Amino acid sequence: MFLAQFMGDEAPFNSLPAITEWAKSLGYLGVQLPSWDSRIMNLKKAAESKTYCDDLKGQTNGLVITELASHLQGQLVASHPAYDELFDVFAAPEVQGNPGARSEWAVEQLKLVIQASANLGLDVTPSFSGALLWPTIYPWPQRPAGLVEEGFKELAKRWKPILDFADQHDVDFAYELHPGEDLFDGATFERFLEATGNHPRVHINYDPSHFVLQCMDYVGFIDVYASRIKAFHVKDAEFRPSAKAGVYGGYLNWQQRPGRFRSLGDGQVDFKQVFSRLTAAGYSSWAVLEWECCFKDSAQGAAEGAPFIASHLIDVPKKAFDDFAGASSDSKRNRRILGLK
Amino acid sequence: MFLAQFMGDEAPFNSLPAITEWAKSLGYLGVQLPSWDSRIMNLKKAAESKTYCDDLKGQTNGLVITELASHLQGQLVASHPAYDELFDVFAAPEVQGNPGARSEWAVEQLKLVIQASANLGLDVTPSFSGALLWPTIYPWPQRPAGLVEEGFKELAKRWKPILDFADQHDVDFAYELHPGEDLFDGATFERFLEATGNHPRVHINYDPSHFVLQCMDYVGFIDVYASRIKAFHVKDAEFRPSAKAGVYGGYLNWQQRPGRFRSLGDGQVDFKQVFSRLTAAGYSSWAVLEWECCFKDSAQGAAEGAPFIASHLIDVPKKAFDDFAGASSDSKRNRRILGLK
Amino acid sequence: MFLAQFMGDEAPFNSLPAITEWAKSLGYLGVQLPSWDSRIMNLKKAAESKTYCDDLKGQTNGLVITELASHLQGQLVASHPAYDELFDVFAAPEVQGNPGARSEWAVEQLKLVIQASANLGLDVTPSFSGALLWPTIYPWPQRPAGLVEEGFKELAKRWKPILDFADQHDVDFAYELHPGEDLFDGATFERFLEATGNHPRVHINYDPSHFVLQCMDYVGFIDVYASRIKAFHVKDAEFRPSAKAGVYGGYLNWQQRPGRFRSLGDGQVDFKQVFSRLTAAGYSSWAVLEWECCFKDSAQGAAEGAPFIASHLIDVPKKAFDDFAGASSDSKRNRRILGLK
Amino acid sequence: MFLAQFMGDEAPFNSLPAITEWAKSLGYLGVQLPSWDSRIMNLKKAAESKTYCDDLKGQTNGLVITELASHLQGQLVASHPAYDELFDVFAAPEVQGNPGARSEWAVEQLKLVIQASANLGLDVTPSFSGALLWPTIYPWPQRPAGLVEEGFKELAKRWKPILDFADQHDVDFAYELHPGEDLFDGATFERFLEATGNHPRVHINYDPSHFVLQCMDYVGFIDVYASRIKAFHVKDAEFRPSAKAGVYGGYLNWQQRPGRFRSLGDGQVDFKQVFSRLTAAGYSSWAVLEWECCFKDSAQGAAEGAPFIASHLIDVPKKAFDDFAGASSDSKRNRRILGLK
Amino acid sequence: MFLAQFMGDEAPFNSLPAITEWAKSLGYLGVQLPSWDSRIMNLKKAAESKTYCDDLKGQTNGLVITELASHLQGQLVASHPAYDELFDVFAAPEVQGNPGARSEWAVEQLKLVIQASANLGLDVTPSFSGALLWPTIYPWPQRPAGLVEEGFKELAKRWKPILDFADQHDVDFAYELHPGEDLFDGATFERFLEATGNHPRVHINYDPSHFVLQCMDYVGFIDVYASRIKAFHVKDAEFRPSAKAGVYGGYLNWQQRPGRFRSLGDGQVDFKQVFSRLTAAGYSSWAVLEWECCFKDSAQGAAEGAPFIASHLIDVPKKAFDDFAGASSDSKRNRRILGLK
Amino acid sequence: MFLAQFMGDEAPFNSLPAITEWAKSLGYLGVQLPSWDSRIMNLKKAAESKTYCDDLKGQTNGLVITELASHLQGQLVASHPAYDELFDVFAAPEVQGNPGARSEWAVEQLKLVIQASANLGLDVTPSFSGALLWPTIYPWPQRPAGLVEEGFKELAKRWKPILDFADQHDVDFAYELHPGEDLFDGATFERFLEATGNHPRVHINYDPSHFVLQCMDYVGFIDVYASRIKAFHVKDAEFRPSAKAGVYGGYLNWQQRPGRFRSLGDGQVDFKQVFSRLTAAGYSSWAVLEWECCFKDSAQGAAEGAPFIASHLIDVPKKAFDDFAGASSDSKRNRRILGLK
Repeated sequence: MFLAQFMGDEAPFNSLPAITEWAKSLGYLGVQLPSWDSRIMNLKKAAESKTYCDDLKGQTNGLVITELASHLQGQLVASHPAYDELFDVFAAPEVQGNPGARSEWAVEQLKLVIQASANLGLDVTPSFSGALLWPTIYPWPQRPAGLVEEGFKELAKRWKPILDFADQHDVDFAYELHPGEDLFDGATFERFLEATGNHPRVHINYDPSHFVLQCMDYVGFIDVYASRIKAFHVKDAEFRPSAKAGVYGGYLNWQQRPGRFRSLGDGQVDFKQVFSRLTAAGYSSWAVLEWECCFKDSAQGAAEGAPFIASHLIDVPKKAFDDFAGASSDSKRNRRILGLK
Repeated sequence: MFLAQFMGDEAPFNSLPAITEWAKSLGYLGVQLPSWDSRIMNLKKAAESKTYCDDLKGQTNGLVITELASHLQGQLVASHPAYDELFDVFAAPEVQGNPGARSEWAVEQLKLVIQASANLGLDVTPSFSGALLWPTIYPWPQRPAGLVEEGFKELAKRWKPILDFADQHDVDFAYELHPGEDLFDGATFERFLEATGNHPRVHINYDPSHFVLQCMDYVGFIDVYASRIKAFHVKDAEFRPSAKAGVYGGYLNWQQRPGRFRSLGDGQVDFKQVFSRLTAAGYSSWAVLEWECCFKDSAQGAAEGAPFIASHLIDVPKKAFDDFAGASSDSKRNRRILGLK
Repeated sequence: MFLAQFMGDEAPFNSLPAITEWAKSLGYLGVQLPSWDSRIMNLKKAAESKTYCDDLKGQTNGLVITELASHLQGQLVASHPAYDELFDVFAAPEVQGNPGARSEWAVEQLKLVIQASANLGLDVTPSFSGALLWPTIYPWPQRPAGLVEEGFKELAKRWKPILDFADQHDVDFAYELHPGEDLFDGATFERFLEATGNHPRVHINYDPSHFVLQCMDYVGFIDVYASRIKAFHVKDAEFRPSAKAGVYGGYLNWQQRPGRFRSLGDGQVDFKQVFSRLTAAGYSSWAVLEWECCFKDSAQGAAEGAPFIASHLIDVPKKAFDDFAGASSDSKRNRRILGLK
Repeated sequence: MFLAQFMGDEAPFNSLPAITEWAKSLGYLGVQLPSWDSRIMNLKKAAESKTYCDDLKGQTNGLVITELASHLQGQLVASHPAYDELFDVFAAPEVQGNPGARSEWAVEQLKLVIQASANLGLDVTPSFSGALLWPTIYPWPQRPAGLVEEGFKELAKRWKPILDFADQHDVDFAYELHPGEDLFDGATFERFLEATGNHPRVHINYDPSHFVLQCMDYVGFIDVYASRIKAFHVKDAEFRPSAKAGVYGGYLNWQQRPGRFRSLGDGQVDFKQVFSRLTAAGYSSWAVLEWECCFKDSAQGAAEGAPFIASHLIDVPKKAFDDFAGASSDSKRNRRILGLK
Repeated sequence: MFLAQFMGDEAPFNSLPAITEWAKSLGYLGVQLPSWDSRIMNLKKAAESKTYCDDLKGQTNGLVITELASHLQGQLVASHPAYDELFDVFAAPEVQGNPGARSEWAVEQLKLVIQASANLGLDVTPSFSGALLWPTIYPWPQRPAGLVEEGFKELAKRWKPILDFADQHDVDFAYELHPGEDLFDGATFERFLEATGNHPRVHINYDPSHFVLQCMDYVGFIDVYASRIKAFHVKDAEFRPSAKAGVYGGYLNWQQRPGRFRSLGDGQVDFKQVFSRLTAAGYSSWAVLEWECCFKDSAQGAAEGAPFIASHLIDVPKKAFDDFAGASSDSKRNRRILGLK
Repeated sequence: MFLAQFMGDEAPFNSLPAITEWAKSLGYLGVQLPSWDSRIMNLKKAAESKTYCDDLKGQTNGLVITELASHLQGQLVASHPAYDELFDVFAAPEVQGNPGARSEWAVEQLKLVIQASANLGLDVTPSFSGALLWPTIYPWPQRPAGLVEEGFKELAKRWKPILDFADQHDVDFAYELHPGEDLFDGATFERFLEATGNHPRVHINYDPSHFVLQCMDYVGFIDVYASRIKAFHVKDAEFRPSAKAGVYGGYLNWQQRPGRFRSLGDGQVDFKQVFSRLTAAGYSSWAVLEWECCFKDSAQGAAEGAPFIASHLIDVPKKAFDDFAGASSDSKRNRRILGLK
């Protein structure tokens, strides 16, 4: 369970021991921590002290800490000026209103996340890439030649030191491909990967909900990018266009816009397929509930989530299926079967 | 035929007499003029002189001037600073780099379009709305309360004097609902209409290609907005998402992005349905080819367009279909049929 | 749970205390009573005596009486002579064979339902409209001009006094849109509404099963008629046409005709969508199981129904979803975001 | 071309020579005559005189008379009283208002059609069955046990003498399966066939438009009923349900009701498939345009119809396709291929 | 539960008492025994001794023995030489390498199965047909004239004595229609049935998974072949073709080939429909889980199977649904309803 | 136009001059010659003499010889014994009945095709791969470990000398991926390519009809294998499964089996898409009609083919579409647009 959307200022949602007790009662086995939320953890201390981290692990009522999420810090590594005002709330007060300082602050924060992850024994952090090109997402006005290349060059330049630092600590970045970021689909992920020189720490946090809202083949995505998927958000969504609005959503609110996040099982994601293809791809890390729904109360969503995920988990076969008939063969016999001498 | 995408610096694409001769040879009956293109017309003169306009009509080899298009001027009425650099090319040199002056210039240009249309005996101009909110099209970062309302209030405020001026000259604005503009679907059109106090000159230039790329129900759109459709661009498109990219298109070029404009008949628009519903809605103005295709040469596209459109036109029945059986009735007979006395 | 289809002459289906005990054991929270069934209630007494009504409420083993249904009486308000013979069984013996008297009797019955509902503290009764035009449902022979108008005029005339009486008692009529009645889809509902002068008591009992059998967009229906939906039958259906029969069903029996009612979850209704859109529309009254299935025993259907409905109920969010990011704003900040001064 | 819907009181639509000249100019090769229309032919004379028939054939400008249609007479063989008033216009004045006499008159008319067909050398007449059960098409009110059987027994009884008379003259009846008639789909056709004791003259006039409006598998229909298809109306239709209306059409007019007839190529019938399956089934008689469209003028519809049909005709292969590889075989070789001695 | 795919050499999968104890603990009510597996039963003894059979029934922990499966023996009745090497493993050592003797041995084995079934009180055995024609499944090279007829003639000749022997013991053969056998779809079943002179013991073991992999209409199949379905394997499958492979599967392994068997509920079979149509067809025998899945462990598959099947079972209605309205009728009343005297 | 299926023993189908005159009259621009057909050409002479080849080119009435097809020779390079009897007819009489000699003969024939192609100035020959594994296409009986690898190893071994010889003569092999061959889809093509060490002469003859019959994504295929497509058969097909038969076709004849080849435009191939994607992939060689249809006469098929193909050809744009707006840019300006210094 990803805790970000459940945190609040009232118990049990305002501290790690309390919220994990609640999560455990619902049947969850682990929690993904929002590394930016001081109600949950002190990121600086976690980066500096393994003792603090061990202590943190002791506060979770036996639930596993699956990953430290670093979305908000990743977001601030790069941001087009059009969003400066809006993203400032995620930054420390002292760097607000100063995009340059804010970006440097974000880089430092991510290094803390890397160190904290290492101290906690975690090898991956789900994150956001930030965005420079996003305002030009639709090709009107036409994008001038070289603009896209320029944007990714700059983005890779900013991430390079972070990724190298991660490499030194054996931690992967799993970018959540997400509209609003410059890494939002397969094509942009490939471009970033190339711009970083195929950096070994560049990976994917697979979240099918964002692909549903982009009308992408989210099942085929697993087959194509299998080797780069290192984290998984189990989140549902639906896209129901009408005669009035479509993919861009008419500036409508969440209940009215055609693309909506939904509680698990209420949307259009075919999770049977998702879990099957991830199994086929050899994915063996956590399936983490991320929850947002404009119709349902979060308590109900959380309660339904754990059994939903449990019912989709697949035990990998203990004996290979292809050998079921017990047939064994050698080259000679095979050649006989093919009619060869 | 909308001439904008065919204009060029070489004959026959560089003058009105030459290009209309070419268009006529392909079978077109009329042309929609890009009012901003000085190779075609002098907008100022057309606004000031009916004689000039009569002369213009004499240069078209017998083709009808269907409308003056004013997309680029409309675009510049309002533009978010993120696009200032990119949109400057559409403005007069003297106002480039000065967004405030540029917007005023655009307003004046539109008034010229209105006057020129009146002088040409035309009662509608297809246009763009401009955009203030477009960078916030995806709700990440979350849009703060009141932002959308603020944007449409400002947009309506800028357009109000133009629309009133149009009203004085009996000219309608037919906004092409188009991503990149703040009026891009039914929901945004309704909001603008409301923000202008249901201004009688606010109408729609129906172009199904943009709705295909938004996955909207472009046929149902006609039923819902029938009374506001005053112009019609016959343009085709296809949306073919994959495991790599979807509606946001991965910053790919036109050939590779899933959403693409296509020559008539090569895309996914069901024009049989479009012409049927427009007929049912009583639409009786022009069907204007707009052409963009990343695979096909424009000459081939233009040549195929005229017979394509001709094959879709519907002659309205001369006698009412419902009376086919010749049955007539009166209330008394009807009551007998219903079993009433 | 709507009791009509479960009533029988053997215990526990032959009395209110017995059948509600059975319903309670299955997990239901309320029952909708067929007001015409004397095994359940004495309608006349209920209309005249609040004490009787209080007593009635005491017989339900704690289940809520959700509504009094008045379908059969509504049916008899208006009926084409072609069905006189068939509908007579629903009327009191003394008015059978006399359509005029039968209609008057039905009007009186409905007034009793209204009074009884008021005595029970209920503000809506699901009902049928009756039909005069139904035999002309297919336009062969061609319907003469004015026939449809005449039919609805007469229908409205008959219902007007009933609706006015309902208005005096603060009771709504929720017409179940149902083939065989003249109100069977959105278009006919609109026509009736108009014919009654937009009477404030004319509403809808939403039942998606009848729309499945008409191939209608039953989800879009909720968006269009949201404000008029006052009751809800949770009933499933499937339509599986073949090379041998389609929507008209070839006079086949229920198991063989392509359109069939089914137990909840066995048909084609997408109840996830139905409950979501009703929630979005602000519907907050009862979800009442109506059960008919040609394949499954009614006991099994009833037992499966309660958990099925429970699994679809949606708890409305306690805090607004759009505020999730905690962003607050004012007009000045909003204008800065839009690039305005 | 079926002339019924084109007949009128003005030239060239008011006489056989004139209308066939017009049809010929459009490219048609034959005409199906409405046997009830005195502007076209005198049915009685045609039944009595081969000379008159030869003369009739001489008036068609070389077009073939493909069949005599007898829909309206067939309709009047049996009609539920609910439609007496509406169907009377199709009967001779002297039997109007007298259902019994009207039915007898219809029987006599059909015998004339049979004789006239024989005189013209035609071996099939497309027709309607009439209807007794149609008002009970939806099973509300529930149809009592035995009702359907009773209806078909009576219908068969009335048609039996006609069919026997047809048998004596080697003429088949090809019933157009059509809502409003009791023979409207495969299931009802089978029941009638059985009720007539599998009469050898009971056949089908295949018209896919009526199956589209019933949502039936009109292609699969050909495979199931191949041996009984003796005539073919090439007519198009579309069914486009909405949130407001579905298969029953809300008593709306033709332009607004979801099920609509359309000009050839404007609807949803997959004629490629229809012509392929009819070819596979060995159908070798005429493909007759029947035209009704609520959007398009009949002149345009007729002009587009002939080339549309021509483009769908299939020349049957001159050499068998399966022999393409020139392989011949005998039992001995076949057994070797199968590994048998 | 069909035990074949669960048998193994370790407890509890290596003996009847142990494996039935395990099956019972999962909620199964019966087991289908692979008659060829000596870990389960001694076929010869079972054929010869009713006492042995009674003893066998006593070893199942109360589970019913639903059928004896005879797939492998049926397979060996007829086999094209191309597969001799591969199928030899299913035969007794003494007949391996000698196709003629192997076929005779298979016939004898099937007679034992028939006798054992009779001794166990079972009236049907699911089986395979074997194949002579399978290598020519795709018509390249072209199949010579008469080849298919020759193949089925020989197949029927071999099965005739077995079927007659089955008839003497009142046992049906339910052929599992399965690629690799010559009976693999409806068309081949019909041909075999005809070649055996419509033998009364030729029936079908319905298994929708094989039809999914053939893209067949597996629901419609039930309607067409209802009277011949005598056994039912509840097995799931999915077919997910791609740009790289389709129905022939590119010689890929099970995880990668587009057509795959899956655990119940993980594939594409619409079991709601399957159980409904079987109910409508009057099927009243066992629903037997057959399990193969390349992704999931067999233990998980087995555990999920029993509740899955239980949730799909349909209790047949105790009172006829059509009589719900209590309407009764006689011919006289029916004629009045039809407007007849 | 591929001549193989049109050749015959009667004029004009029995000689190159005659058949090309006929093809030219239908509008074709080129012909693909079946290199095995002595009525068309003497393969040996063509391999040995450039003069003969020049003469051959002079006999085509001005049509271009597009390629020499070598399907039948390719087929015989490798064949499972199960098909020896059937494929013998394609071999020279002296090697029939002797598979080893036949294979050697086929290799020699292909070398002649390579030389003849070179003499004719052609750089590609469409062909078949032959098959060793095809009888094991369905994994029942289970394929033993290593069987598939063994088969492809042998196949590659046989083709290696041919491919090397082709390399010396600058000729590509374009394998038609075709059921019955071991190269029949993308997965098998990849395996063969790998087995030949990614031989530079291994390419694809793209024919969508075979992919339709395999239910593959034939459009996506182009995107995946773009760089290897060197030839293109324009052939149509349809797959229409039923309750009786599916992809394996029930040993039915072509008219009855669900998968059927069809004349261009009569099947299910979306040629708009095919030509668009081939254009996007940069394919610039011939589009060659291959015709087989079980319903239509070959003369009609040929006559309709040429205009059908012509209407699908795409003229590649003369100016790049992305530059349409005339925008040019430099890195500095691009950085300003992205909000960077």
